Amino acid sequence: MNHTVREKPKLLARVRRIRGQLEGIERALEAEKRSAEVLHQIVAARGALTGLMREVMEGHINSHIANPQDPGDGTREQGAAELIAILRSYMK
Amino acid sequence: MNHTVREKPKLLARVRRIRGQLEGIERALEAEKRSAEVLHQIVAARGALTGLMREVMEGHINSHIANPQDPGDGTREQGAAELIAILRSYMK
Amino acid sequence: MNHTVREKPKLLARVRRIRGQLEGIERALEAEKRSAEVLHQIVAARGALTGLMREVMEGHINSHIANPQDPGDGTREQGAAELIAILRSYMK
Amino acid sequence: MNHTVREKPKLLARVRRIRGQLEGIERALEAEKRSAEVLHQIVAARGALTGLMREVMEGHINSHIANPQDPGDGTREQGAAELIAILRSYMK
Repeated sequence: MNHTVREKPKLLARVRRIRGQLEGIERALEAEKRSAEVLHQIVAARGALTGLMREVMEGHINSHIANPQDPGDGTREQGAAELIAILRSYMK
Repeated sequence: MNHTVREKPKLLARVRRIRGQLEGIERALEAEKRSAEVLHQIVAARGALTGLMREVMEGHINSHIANPQDPGDGTREQGAAELIAILRSYMK
Repeated sequence: MNHTVREKPKLLARVRRIRGQLEGIERALEAEKRSAEVLHQIVAARGALTGLMREVMEGHINSHIANPQDPGDGTREQGAAELIAILRSYMK
Repeated sequence: MNHTVREKPKLLARVRRIRGQLEGIERALEAEKRSAEVLHQIVAARGALTGLMREVMEGHINSHIANPQDPGDGTREQGAAELIAILRSYMK
């Protein structure tokens, strides 16, 4: 079973929390808060998104490259190529 | 008038678009998509959030440091100190 | 006097330390160290360079935008435009 | 043979180029150049270091996780654990 399936409840909880942070940014803009306050909220949401990305990446490394177990996991070569493509778009 | 007030409609539209990207990530996890696909969506949402941060930061630099015009904008010293605090938390 | 002039000895010491880290990476590659070790050294040098950037940026914010004192410091508008250009190239 | 050994000449050339960029930053500080100019050089050196990191990371993914070939390459589990540790220190 895919790691994002196994960890689905935990990952969904994280995404929803970040969505809540976005709603907070929206409310701060609506309420015409000072830009420094809005910026702190954006930095925090971005940090949380980075944490989520790292979490999913770690699962990908283990389940799709180091140790694929299901036929649906694909080959190691595919998993490695996918991760490399993601790192290239992320580390621009 | 504060830059985040002047640009409120544009900034709100951007935040809502990013919130939509978060909902897309949630749906991809619910639908048990492959982690590479989820990762591409996370990288895209994170890039959009970085763009929003830069936008608000630019307004802050102009309205609160270079050229504060309203009494409510605060002093240049305050604006500079706020930006420095944000850069420190962002550029860890 | 420009902040990078006033803080010249401290900034030069930092740049030289980072140059030393680069020499360490070169030696690790020459000695055919394991890539994980090389990567840790690269991450450390990159972190140090980020710290240096933040330091110079903070001086720029104070001396060229919030509080320019010498004629050679240029106008606030110029300082703000320069910082925005740098943030755009950095936060891609 | 380890990927950093196979690609040693190319990687060394890259590290030396970045070292040259650091020397350029040192000269700019010595010559008391305007901070905006120093900042552009720092952003460029940091970008080059990110590119080097990605290059070594890609080799690590292929040689130490997806497809280790030599006994000296270590196990896939070791390679995966090393990459995860590096991503954690990098994506703080």
